[in-house]
Amino acid sequence: MSTTAEPVAASAVVGALVAALPAGRVLDDPDVLASYAHDDAEWAPHALPAAVVRPRTAEEVQAVVQACLSHRAPVVPRGAGTGLSGGANATEGAVVVSTEHMTGVLEIDPAERLAVVQPGVVNDDLRAACAELGLWYPPDPASSPWSTIGGNVATNAGGVCCVKYGVTRDYVLGMQVVNGLGELVRLGRRTAKGVAGLDLAGLMVGSEGTLGVITEVTVKLRPARAPEHTVAGYFGSVVDAGRAVAAITAAGLTPSALELVDRTCLEAVDAWKKMGLAGEADVVLLGRSDAPGAAGDTEAGEMVRHFSEAGASFAAQAADAEEADALFAARRLAYPALERLGPVLTEDVCVPRAAVPEMLARIQEIGRRHDTTIANLAHAGDGNLHPLLITPVGDEPARERAQAAFEEILAEALALGGTVTGEHGVGLLKRDGLQREQAPEVLAMQRAVKAALDPHAILNPGKVL
Amino acid sequence: MSTTAEPVAASAVVGALVAALPAGRVLDDPDVLASYAHDDAEWAPHALPAAVVRPRTAEEVQAVVQACLSHRAPVVPRGAGTGLSGGANATEGAVVVSTEHMTGVLEIDPAERLAVVQPGVVNDDLRAACAELGLWYPPDPASSPWSTIGGNVATNAGGVCCVKYGVTRDYVLGMQVVNGLGELVRLGRRTAKGVAGLDLAGLMVGSEGTLGVITEVTVKLRPARAPEHTVAGYFGSVVDAGRAVAAITAAGLTPSALELVDRTCLEAVDAWKKMGLAGEADVVLLGRSDAPGAAGDTEAGEMVRHFSEAGASFAAQAADAEEADALFAARRLAYPALERLGPVLTEDVCVPRAAVPEMLARIQEIGRRHDTTIANLAHAGDGNLHPLLITPVGDEPARERAQAAFEEILAEALALGGTVTGEHGVGLLKRDGLQREQAPEVLAMQRAVKAALDPHAILNPGKVL
Repeated sequence: MSTTAEPVAASAVVGALVAALPAGRVLDDPDVLASYAHDDAEWAPHALPAAVVRPRTAEEVQAVVQACLSHRAPVVPRGAGTGLSGGANATEGAVVVSTEHMTGVLEIDPAERLAVVQPGVVNDDLRAACAELGLWYPPDPASSPWSTIGGNVATNAGGVCCVKYGVTRDYVLGMQVVNGLGELVRLGRRTAKGVAGLDLAGLMVGSEGTLGVITEVTVKLRPARAPEHTVAGYFGSVVDAGRAVAAITAAGLTPSALELVDRTCLEAVDAWKKMGLAGEADVVLLGRSDAPGAAGDTEAGEMVRHFSEAGASFAAQAADAEEADALFAARRLAYPALERLGPVLTEDVCVPRAAVPEMLARIQEIGRRHDTTIANLAHAGDGNLHPLLITPVGDEPARERAQAAFEEILAEALALGGTVTGEHGVGLLKRDGLQREQAPEVLAMQRAVKAALDPHAILNPGKVL
Repeated sequence: MSTTAEPVAASAVVGALVAALPAGRVLDDPDVLASYAHDDAEWAPHALPAAVVRPRTAEEVQAVVQACLSHRAPVVPRGAGTGLSGGANATEGAVVVSTEHMTGVLEIDPAERLAVVQPGVVNDDLRAACAELGLWYPPDPASSPWSTIGGNVATNAGGVCCVKYGVTRDYVLGMQVVNGLGELVRLGRRTAKGVAGLDLAGLMVGSEGTLGVITEVTVKLRPARAPEHTVAGYFGSVVDAGRAVAAITAAGLTPSALELVDRTCLEAVDAWKKMGLAGEADVVLLGRSDAPGAAGDTEAGEMVRHFSEAGASFAAQAADAEEADALFAARRLAYPALERLGPVLTEDVCVPRAAVPEMLARIQEIGRRHDTTIANLAHAGDGNLHPLLITPVGDEPARERAQAAFEEILAEALALGGTVTGEHGVGLLKRDGLQREQAPEVLAMQRAVKAALDPHAILNPGKVL
């Protein structure tokens, strides 16, 4: 929104960067700078950076941070720019450090079940490399074809399978970072367990570049899992779907996915792909089980039974992988289908599982009240909802109404005991929400930690806190 | 070792504590103080505290910390005192805050799969309460019949099943703590996911009371799991046992326990319980599988096959629960059996899994060189070894040799890419080891975080850092 019209003049820090780095690392062409001015947080403030740097080694990242320290220039770390909260948005005079050229999978060790990667490795590329060795890196954000491990770690990315397997945090063993003093340090460990000192590696996860620039990550891997069984249920109301989710949890089942897609999403997918989904259901639940052997078939059958008992008009297990993929396509295509209709403002609240139906009802009411189209995708099994607020292109009043709705959704999530961000991060879009979620004393503790590790306030200043 | 001979005079802080708290909370009888002067870290320095306080509410803990702040008296948080690194050892003039009367299980919510407990709840008591509702709290340190959730969280306790299910850190959603400013704050969340701000709750886990006093913990639960299948293998050498462990990992199996017990442990158990184990093996591996249904039987069978192929003289699945328990008894009884022989100094190194045989060989060599009896228990599947150094009662030269051996074991673990503490914590015993493990820059980052959150240095000063 606040993109500066005129390019920022090459400043002293740009000269220092050019001098410190090999040729070609520093970009300052205004058109190029504009393409790095923001991530996928459509609506968050951003400005043209002073420069974009694409280092290739940890030492080059260190040289960048040291140059920025000397000139007190803000450092904005950036992975693939797929973030949805503005955490990688540039600010006036900032140096964007893009890890896009640090794409080395340095090591995959089957005996230790770990991988060591540079931060710019794309999530799906790591997963593919692991699969070749019979190993699996679980975190699977929807952005996995594009987003990078460094960005995933910086935002503590979630995904579809975290209902069973946890989030990025649960897979980070250690990392190398350049800290706020320009030092290149190793945090964490390579061993399966370890409690030596404060968990600084864990603290870096989800800190959105405010405590350090990640130059290498060591992640835990799992053995490849059993093929998944996929089930679908069509429901006439979110309340029925919510009852199905609650029953599955109460029965002690552990689905490897439990996703919700509402009618607005289904209609958008239908309008684009002619799948005829919206005629059949107001809400679709998609579940998966990867329990080994016969247990997987049994668990999938149990999910179907709970769907039916909760009032599904249709519930069945997919006959084969093709049918399963077609079912999940509705979920995967929903976001691009909605983007065809206009700019999408993506919410990311997480509420207690049992509050999902109530939260969805409140979201519908908020949409009505603010005359805003809101579609709902949800990691229902986790209580992590993604209301998608859609406005017609160029309709500023609609945009303002949508922003008001956005803030009200945060308030309702907090009222139900939830959080303003389940997996996308605070960035710029949730800074106010964070202030509402946490006590002043806790915010002060966060600021104290930030100041302790970034005493010159050069690491992604203005983000999160 | 450095217990002061004379009781510390009741100081001003004791008067302030008595004034601030209900009757009976403050103890200052010298005999009582002596019983709270140290945890189970037999050999770590300790002193008589100025007082022991046993609060019953979070607000009382807050009053204690505020009184200590006013008088700049050190606060030493203490759970059950089962720690093995001296993290709860008292220092001169300190106020020991024992959570032993804060034993409320405040909530177990099956729908959200979480429990909220006061810090003094004993691990096994929480597990039993969860089991009644078909739920499971996995972390299972050997101290689970006595140790408390607060202590488990403060040390990030591990256990037997963490080879499959992770450590305490993986189950902490949120907590309430009194911070270094005497403020009572809530950190973390109740929702399944959440990334709002820096992960201060995670930072508290394993911080050994140096950043806050835990007054309540919210933990994640799992559904009750399938009954375990138990297998045992007898090996003639640690190298063969190590090959079996590596083969099980390489095959993609995920045992729910994979423990190693060596001949010195077996002989001590035999001498006590006449089980006749040491005649059969130099090393015993014990494995478990809790995969559901037929998959559990299959996985157990695979483990037996890998034991045999690695050269086990005997390998079999236990016929029933009774036999399985008898097998694990050797592991469980090893520590008390060894303590019958003299004071035990417990090591806790963790090395890469593949380095387990080499590390065990180096430990044997260190024992020989320092004429010190060293028995080995190990969470072999995690690479987490517990060499147990035993010295005859009252033999001071033997004690000195054992301490030299202890330090050398740390050095060898580091040389093999390991850590000085896998699950027991740094406390006092591993402070030097921590300095050797981590770079000066990383230690400085830890000190900066500590100073940021405990600016008056009253929270367990002198521990860890």
